[in-house]
Amino acid sequence: MDYYSGEIARLIEELSSLPGIGAKSAQRLAFHILSMPKEHVEALSSAILSAKNNVRYCSCCFNLTDQELCPVCADSARDKKTIMVVENTRDLVAYEKTGKYEGVYHVLHGAISPMLGIGPGDIRLKELMSRLAGDVDEVIVATNSSLEGETTAMYISKLIKPTGIRVTRIASGVPVGGDLEYIDEVTLLRALQGRTEL
Amino acid sequence: MDYYSGEIARLIEELSSLPGIGAKSAQRLAFHILSMPKEHVEALSSAILSAKNNVRYCSCCFNLTDQELCPVCADSARDKKTIMVVENTRDLVAYEKTGKYEGVYHVLHGAISPMLGIGPGDIRLKELMSRLAGDVDEVIVATNSSLEGETTAMYISKLIKPTGIRVTRIASGVPVGGDLEYIDEVTLLRALQGRTEL
Repeated sequence: MDYYSGEIARLIEELSSLPGIGAKSAQRLAFHILSMPKEHVEALSSAILSAKNNVRYCSCCFNLTDQELCPVCADSARDKKTIMVVENTRDLVAYEKTGKYEGVYHVLHGAISPMLGIGPGDIRLKELMSRLAGDVDEVIVATNSSLEGETTAMYISKLIKPTGIRVTRIASGVPVGGDLEYIDEVTLLRALQGRTEL
Repeated sequence: MDYYSGEIARLIEELSSLPGIGAKSAQRLAFHILSMPKEHVEALSSAILSAKNNVRYCSCCFNLTDQELCPVCADSARDKKTIMVVENTRDLVAYEKTGKYEGVYHVLHGAISPMLGIGPGDIRLKELMSRLAGDVDEVIVATNSSLEGETTAMYISKLIKPTGIRVTRIASGVPVGGDLEYIDEVTLLRALQGRTEL
């Protein structure tokens, strides 16, 4: 880093601390930023700071938002009686992009992982349970199909069943367009177990 | 972008305008930034703005710096009589990393390219010529060995030769550790033409 004067070295260092940005990319980004028009640099810098300062959790579903309620919870057309439980905001966005889900969400911000020392108290489970006191027909558990996601799904189902509310799990199976030949055995078995009538 | 509330959408948009950062990476970076400690976000945001505000061209060699002179020109141990001409700051850094070059630099900020409409007047050639009025022994032309770099090298050599100052060009040839089998014909011919006595 001795090749750069202080300000440039500092910028490269800050950029390379971001995930997926190595030393080379950070250097390239830094030089790009220095070559951008000043207004554009100011916009970038303030977008970063302002997002951090103004973005918080939706008071209902814990999605990220800059309002009291996130766009989904604030939308009166959404079916508030159906709650899809996801691990994080990226998973929520993935389902929103399908454009077909009409219910609301609950973002756990994590999954139960004894390995990483994340227990049921470390994710937004208590908040999910208190939402169920309202008028809810179904909870769809859409945690990942990883070990942690499955553990979390099992835990949630045991927690909710006594309340009498319907709990469902999104299907595991062969992805659309997937070639059986290249799909792992566990997924193939799941697809077999989850087979439906034609 | 409708899946995100305003501040998040704006951050993602700003990030995805950077080179090599697509929609997915921008999303991942945005969520990472939102999860970083506040002080770290402030440091990142201010590093960007402050670098843009304080970084300028070295008044001697046009390297990027936050001082009047860049670290190389400000170093009294460097041989000011040897000037290496490079296309940009990244190329300067590449040579600085070898740790063996003891002269100074001149950064052109571009190369002559009739295709892109970049002529001799659009790069820092006039400034190079005015430096030669001082006490200079040798100009080493280290522009890239692309068409533009070679054109620029030829132009510089024609410009400097009448002054009697020695003009040299870095060698073209087979990279160290390169396997002849995989090296293009032009490079192989260059290596042959540039052969030296053993």
